[in-house]
Amino acid sequence: MAVQTGMMNMTDQRITMAHGSGGESTSELIAEVFGRYFHNEVLDRLGDAAVVQGAGRIALTTDSFVVTPVFFPGGDIGRLAVCGTVNDLLMSGATPQYLTCACIIEEGLPVEELIRVVSSMAETAKEAGVSIVTGDTKVVERRSEDRSELLINTAGVGMIPDDREAPLPEAARCQPGDVVIVSGVLGDHHAAILSARMGIQNAIVSDAAPLTEMVSGLMAAGMDIHAMRDVTRGGLGTILREFAESARCGIEIREEALPVRQEVRDFCGLLGLDPLYMGNEGKAVFVVAPEDAERALSIIRGSRYGAEAVCIGTVQEAAQPEVVLHTRIGGRRRVGPLIGEGLPRIC
Amino acid sequence: MAVQTGMMNMTDQRITMAHGSGGESTSELIAEVFGRYFHNEVLDRLGDAAVVQGAGRIALTTDSFVVTPVFFPGGDIGRLAVCGTVNDLLMSGATPQYLTCACIIEEGLPVEELIRVVSSMAETAKEAGVSIVTGDTKVVERRSEDRSELLINTAGVGMIPDDREAPLPEAARCQPGDVVIVSGVLGDHHAAILSARMGIQNAIVSDAAPLTEMVSGLMAAGMDIHAMRDVTRGGLGTILREFAESARCGIEIREEALPVRQEVRDFCGLLGLDPLYMGNEGKAVFVVAPEDAERALSIIRGSRYGAEAVCIGTVQEAAQPEVVLHTRIGGRRRVGPLIGEGLPRIC
Repeated sequence: MAVQTGMMNMTDQRITMAHGSGGESTSELIAEVFGRYFHNEVLDRLGDAAVVQGAGRIALTTDSFVVTPVFFPGGDIGRLAVCGTVNDLLMSGATPQYLTCACIIEEGLPVEELIRVVSSMAETAKEAGVSIVTGDTKVVERRSEDRSELLINTAGVGMIPDDREAPLPEAARCQPGDVVIVSGVLGDHHAAILSARMGIQNAIVSDAAPLTEMVSGLMAAGMDIHAMRDVTRGGLGTILREFAESARCGIEIREEALPVRQEVRDFCGLLGLDPLYMGNEGKAVFVVAPEDAERALSIIRGSRYGAEAVCIGTVQEAAQPEVVLHTRIGGRRRVGPLIGEGLPRIC
Repeated sequence: MAVQTGMMNMTDQRITMAHGSGGESTSELIAEVFGRYFHNEVLDRLGDAAVVQGAGRIALTTDSFVVTPVFFPGGDIGRLAVCGTVNDLLMSGATPQYLTCACIIEEGLPVEELIRVVSSMAETAKEAGVSIVTGDTKVVERRSEDRSELLINTAGVGMIPDDREAPLPEAARCQPGDVVIVSGVLGDHHAAILSARMGIQNAIVSDAAPLTEMVSGLMAAGMDIHAMRDVTRGGLGTILREFAESARCGIEIREEALPVRQEVRDFCGLLGLDPLYMGNEGKAVFVVAPEDAERALSIIRGSRYGAEAVCIGTVQEAAQPEVVLHTRIGGRRRVGPLIGEGLPRIC
């Protein structure tokens, strides 16, 4: 009953330093915001650590999210914080299972905004098939007059199935002849964040999504994925360069095959951006043996968020690691490293 | 060789937004700061997730650290970030094994400061017997003219030994007759942070420490600890109240038994602070059956950081949950909840 009464008041409140004290206000915030939306058997015990079922091998990852603005077309920091960590686990060959949620909140944040973010996390976690089992909340002083920031860290634990036969994906396993597949259009998240920040109204929305169905489909089919990576900060170009470096090989991709939505292409043209270096939050690149390529592509296309998957190139023998782009007009361009800032606070 | 050359330059640099881009500068920062100090077989693979050995049951925890100042008498944010998470795992009955390390760095931070923090984390992790296996780095704009902040999240995974016979400690397992032990003096971390912030020179130092040896000693002896908790934000008073609430019992403690160092006592007297609500970072409270109390106390006293452990009270039947302090002058005082702010950014 106390909780119910509290809840009604809470939605209209702002975060205060007392919410970070570790005392009554902290308990109230945890119960009425996090407890309410993340509610599950493990989390409800409210211990400082969660005890959960393990496995012979587990995967562990962490990501902090500092995206600004916190709400953007197609998503929010909460959806991002779940997708980013779930996708990192998937990329290691693990089945994502448990997430932690640690919030650093600037005082003055409207509790209503926190609730929108937390409920978005809960919804995305449900879609991704993971439980948020433990968390932490810190409150810090607000240092900007016009807004209170919210930073979220999610760490994740996934299980490596004991009966898994195929070796785990690893950049170094790329080999000449392999086919490179991307799961969909490039640059959407990056362009959506940048548009929001510039106050530009357009049809671009973030692609933030958990790739659970796509990757578990490939795994369930026993597919031997040589390498896979979610396309985030740094973009596809940066990932392919890392693959080439790790496997000491060349990667050749065709510009005309790179999937980019027309609005994003126009936006990039306007600002002189290259989709090859732009971050997504719901796309992955897969490297598979040529004989597996068609089957992999069909599984990816049949999965949620994978309808626009395409083969974009191949792995080649090379005297030294390099990524080469075959341009539309028949040229060859070396894909260099991303130098400098990229887009700050994109995730 | 590139790393060596880079390293020499790096120590004198400041963090720039480019270090957060996900491109070359990010790789350099990760290799030359985090990779250099955290170096281990799993981390060195530099995947977005770490694959490690699991167990039938695992414990999972997360904590963000926002302490200010970042360096304080007796420790720094790095030592704190390892101790806090290691201790949370220990308190759940797990053997701490793997940590993640996610840094949010404001541009302008001298790399030399980051290196001091990272090497402190590495040293503390070694003492605590854990490996830092994966991490994340984000850079955000500096928003204060005079300093760049550093925020750290550590998530941790511990293993619950398969052959463990005693049930896991849990607040609800406190029962009438049980003895309450604290592992050492109260309030040191809190008083050290506050002194540093007020610019007061005194002999008080933080007690930040990993309690691995103490707790694993109790576990190895097969001790059935009914409840245990590390004394942090909110202080001993807040924890005992939570124990009493969870177990629906009373807890009586004796003021004269509460261990407080003389300098801390003086400092508290001066500022009107109550050590019962002050945070430590290397102390724990244990609740055990009366027949186990002497043996538990002797194990704790024989362990690192446990020399000053004492029994401070007992669990009692009570009509409703309450914590009662028997004062030095023979009075009874109800230990109420911590209301309001406490000390912001103490951890």
